[in-house]
Amino acid sequence: MITVVSLQELWEARQDLPGPVGLIPTMGYLHEGHLILVRQALETCASVVVSIFVNPTQFGPAEDLEAYPRDIERDLSVLKSVGTHLVWLPTPEIMYPANFQTWVDTTDVSQPLEGSYRPGHFRGVTTVVTKLFNAVRPDRAYFGQKDAQQVAVVRQMTRDLSYPIEIEVVPTVRESDGLAMSSRNTYLDEAQREAATVLYRALREAESAYLQGERRGDALRRIMQDTIKAEPLASAQYVSCADRNTLHEIDLVTDGALLSMAVYVGKTRLIDNWILKP
Amino acid sequence: MITVVSLQELWEARQDLPGPVGLIPTMGYLHEGHLILVRQALETCASVVVSIFVNPTQFGPAEDLEAYPRDIERDLSVLKSVGTHLVWLPTPEIMYPANFQTWVDTTDVSQPLEGSYRPGHFRGVTTVVTKLFNAVRPDRAYFGQKDAQQVAVVRQMTRDLSYPIEIEVVPTVRESDGLAMSSRNTYLDEAQREAATVLYRALREAESAYLQGERRGDALRRIMQDTIKAEPLASAQYVSCADRNTLHEIDLVTDGALLSMAVYVGKTRLIDNWILKP
Repeated sequence: MITVVSLQELWEARQDLPGPVGLIPTMGYLHEGHLILVRQALETCASVVVSIFVNPTQFGPAEDLEAYPRDIERDLSVLKSVGTHLVWLPTPEIMYPANFQTWVDTTDVSQPLEGSYRPGHFRGVTTVVTKLFNAVRPDRAYFGQKDAQQVAVVRQMTRDLSYPIEIEVVPTVRESDGLAMSSRNTYLDEAQREAATVLYRALREAESAYLQGERRGDALRRIMQDTIKAEPLASAQYVSCADRNTLHEIDLVTDGALLSMAVYVGKTRLIDNWILKP
Repeated sequence: MITVVSLQELWEARQDLPGPVGLIPTMGYLHEGHLILVRQALETCASVVVSIFVNPTQFGPAEDLEAYPRDIERDLSVLKSVGTHLVWLPTPEIMYPANFQTWVDTTDVSQPLEGSYRPGHFRGVTTVVTKLFNAVRPDRAYFGQKDAQQVAVVRQMTRDLSYPIEIEVVPTVRESDGLAMSSRNTYLDEAQREAATVLYRALREAESAYLQGERRGDALRRIMQDTIKAEPLASAQYVSCADRNTLHEIDLVTDGALLSMAVYVGKTRLIDNWILKP
């Protein structure tokens, strides 16, 4: 496994990689949800590149940039053990040098849900993903379904900017009690950790109603809200039943619709989602 | 010479091109100023790609998008004769499909001069250049010094977005009387064509003062203004003596400063520039 830091090192290492090349962008503190992306990439890519970069421009001023968990040594050890070929560890100064002034903005799909509660978040995401795509020039890039709106935004951006890159989306990996894996789960104390299963329970209750014939978006949103309200340690920021590509809320629900939510458990903000299937 | 239209055709043709690959983005109606870019690319690139696309997003609502001259057959014949390997002729629908919503914006260097008189122009430029860079994945890209601010914006964007692409800038090609070659020169009638030399004359008069020791930016701007005022068919929109990278106006002029201007000759808007040298 090769590890590089500077752009020049990356570009040189990239030239020696046999294709197809797969890229997995991460912010580090890797868990099984990341490793499944790497394993999926290894199945069809001759070379797998993982980037680790806690991207400051996708954090709001009141968010957890400083607190975001980091453990580079463990990350590298795990990435090596699964067979990663190249790891890129850029610094903030490499990604955002003095006088940086270019932004990539995907205007519509980034507005609702996460975009409305985290202004500027997706501009940071699309800008850094553009930079990762440009610097690595992958054939395929892997993202987790856990960040459902990010998937929609990155797909839109990739199409709009004419990248010859396939966006591969990998299902959310969950703990045995249903909690979606997230680096932020480390913020939870024991009682909060237990309460945090409420996101998964709310999603599955709404799905259950859907499978029993409920087709009203309002009714599914109400079920999710009520489930979260019943959990004293949890507080919903939003619940949504939306088109999975546009993220517009829908009144009449059909297969493929996206249930999603952001929920505070204590001071920790958790997100989760579920795609309705027949 | 291969000619492609769709992105899929382009990506497939691109895979067979030996590197290094040079890209020359154009809006067609090619003149000697474009061909010198192609010839320079051919000197060091194994493959030379020319794109021809009159990019609607860099034209303002009151500008000359519809009138912009086009002659694809002549362009292709000329490109073939100089040894171009691949020509990409995307349609507006390919570049901006329905629901297009992603924009690239280089915020500071795109503000003054052209940016202030053509709001949105550089957002259109950086967005389309990003798309050309992504679709073609060149090693080098060639731009004319004629569009001096475009050069500064594209350099900044290329650095900010981590592209492994060298930006090569080629000197302005001029008619024998000094008029900078431009596809828009075709709009000029005979009297206007003669008056249009005023841009070059104004630049050279300011340069002459600089070479004789004038170092005040105001004085050089005044010389250019006065020269243009003396030409009845011409009217300056702006004259500038600025830092060539930031485009900020400068008070105390040194070698490398950029003289530039936009001048209306009749209804035709012409631009030109000159870099001061020792």
